Amino acid sequence: MAGRVLTVGGAQMGPVARSDGRARTVGRMVDLMRRAHARGCDLVVFPELALTAFFPRWFIEDPDELDGFYEFSMPGAETRPLFDTARELGVGFHLGYAEADGERRFNTAILVDKAGGIVAKYRKIHLPGHAGHEPERAFQHLEKRYFEVGDLGFPVWETMGGKIGMLICNDRRWPEAFRVLGLQGVELVLIGYNTPTFNGQTFEPPHLRVHHNLLSMQAGAYQNGAWVCGVAKAGLEDGVRMMGSSAIVTPNGEVAAQAVTLDDELIVADCDLDAGAAIKAGVFDFAAHRRPEHYGLIVETAGAVPPRGT
Amino acid sequence: MAGRVLTVGGAQMGPVARSDGRARTVGRMVDLMRRAHARGCDLVVFPELALTAFFPRWFIEDPDELDGFYEFSMPGAETRPLFDTARELGVGFHLGYAEADGERRFNTAILVDKAGGIVAKYRKIHLPGHAGHEPERAFQHLEKRYFEVGDLGFPVWETMGGKIGMLICNDRRWPEAFRVLGLQGVELVLIGYNTPTFNGQTFEPPHLRVHHNLLSMQAGAYQNGAWVCGVAKAGLEDGVRMMGSSAIVTPNGEVAAQAVTLDDELIVADCDLDAGAAIKAGVFDFAAHRRPEHYGLIVETAGAVPPRGT
Repeated sequence: MAGRVLTVGGAQMGPVARSDGRARTVGRMVDLMRRAHARGCDLVVFPELALTAFFPRWFIEDPDELDGFYEFSMPGAETRPLFDTARELGVGFHLGYAEADGERRFNTAILVDKAGGIVAKYRKIHLPGHAGHEPERAFQHLEKRYFEVGDLGFPVWETMGGKIGMLICNDRRWPEAFRVLGLQGVELVLIGYNTPTFNGQTFEPPHLRVHHNLLSMQAGAYQNGAWVCGVAKAGLEDGVRMMGSSAIVTPNGEVAAQAVTLDDELIVADCDLDAGAAIKAGVFDFAAHRRPEHYGLIVETAGAVPPRGT
Repeated sequence: MAGRVLTVGGAQMGPVARSDGRARTVGRMVDLMRRAHARGCDLVVFPELALTAFFPRWFIEDPDELDGFYEFSMPGAETRPLFDTARELGVGFHLGYAEADGERRFNTAILVDKAGGIVAKYRKIHLPGHAGHEPERAFQHLEKRYFEVGDLGFPVWETMGGKIGMLICNDRRWPEAFRVLGLQGVELVLIGYNTPTFNGQTFEPPHLRVHHNLLSMQAGAYQNGAWVCGVAKAGLEDGVRMMGSSAIVTPNGEVAAQAVTLDDELIVADCDLDAGAAIKAGVFDFAAHRRPEHYGLIVETAGAVPPRGT
């Protein structure tokens, strides 16, 4: 391959039951890393909150029970095999997990390089859902209860031969998040997600929800001239169906690889990190074409304001 | 139809030759308005710079010749039939044209209501292309020479029963532009464009250029819960091929209607202006989920900055 190619494996994961221990789940992940290595991957991307069931779907009152879903150190005894495997195979990985930092709690992703060292950490900023128990929902979505808003911004790191950023799940729907990465010249955006097949509150055609997922990642890729690797936890997890549809998207917004199961599945693409250069120098030459003096409303308000046309 | 339905006609136009007079072109547009009226349209959307050939493709040195492409009054003698037809039929319209305002020049769009009155004006902010003659290009793209950056911001107007905003051509690729409209609760975004089938500088597969057009409009629609009506000037215009692919997109980012020719063609959709309400109250409840404190870079810089990860 010409250019600066990073071969990326998206390691979609089937359901992780609430009753599954870390050892079992980490074993599946090590297996995916070995399959990725056999396919020539430099980097394996795991989903959001990959180590456990997606626990924000439950209202959990017992603090000890809740703490069982968080990692209090990284690596810890149970996650160390991932780091050992990275070093052994010379394969980096991206991991989403629930982070306990003293009393603070974050929905976090890290990037681990081929030497097994943590080279980047991101904490999810766009927490969806709600903070209080809402029993009328088909299932809860308590991310606003169980996590703080991330406090690390949207950094881009120069690592593994490229400019790499991370988003988590709902972040991918927000063009602001992609743009802050794009304004740092991002070449590859790593995203883990857990998205239910059904809306928990109202009926929304499931095919539209898959469409929204791909549309958001494709637009974020094209509008910033960057590769996007979005990886789901999928399938029927403790009674809730998760959509899957993990995808690797080119800087033109094309789907280069897409998962076709709702189970553990590896998708692979050779990501030429120079592939977005023409877009960044052309239609999205930010310095030439952006007009921040007209974007003020984006930072002046969170919620909508009245129409300003007169 | 339930809800607040505005029946919108996208009036794609085939080529307008440099030698065509305004009378001929306005005649075609009046015909499209009559066809739209017969299909029950409340509003007809015409392309960007609809009244003439897309003149930024030529380096024109003679100021009088260049002035021939601009409108010095709106309506003027030659455009008055559009306003008369609006009043006669009770059909509003959206028109893109080159505006001369004294010595100033803008790439402008107006919205005219069913009574034939101008109720909104927008001046294009994201001017693509270049300011100097670049003879090595297959054709010029001199919008930065012939127009000033718009000075009216991105307003949304409460008019014709809804909250309506306007973008012009290249604006549609910029999520910032859509978001400023979205933050004013926009329900329908009207867009005219002129997009060549081929990139004038380097080879880019034409199918990707069509994909980028639809992707940008679909993402802008979904991420703001708004209808988008994007209308092209299409076909072989004075030797340059224009892509067409005009589309009306739902607030879910689905293509509800799409042009299938490169000629004068009407596409119609019944736009229920309440259709985006669930999106605005749910996944894109801006007040609940946006985090402007992390978006600062969007307004602090036009061009890219070094990666900030450490």
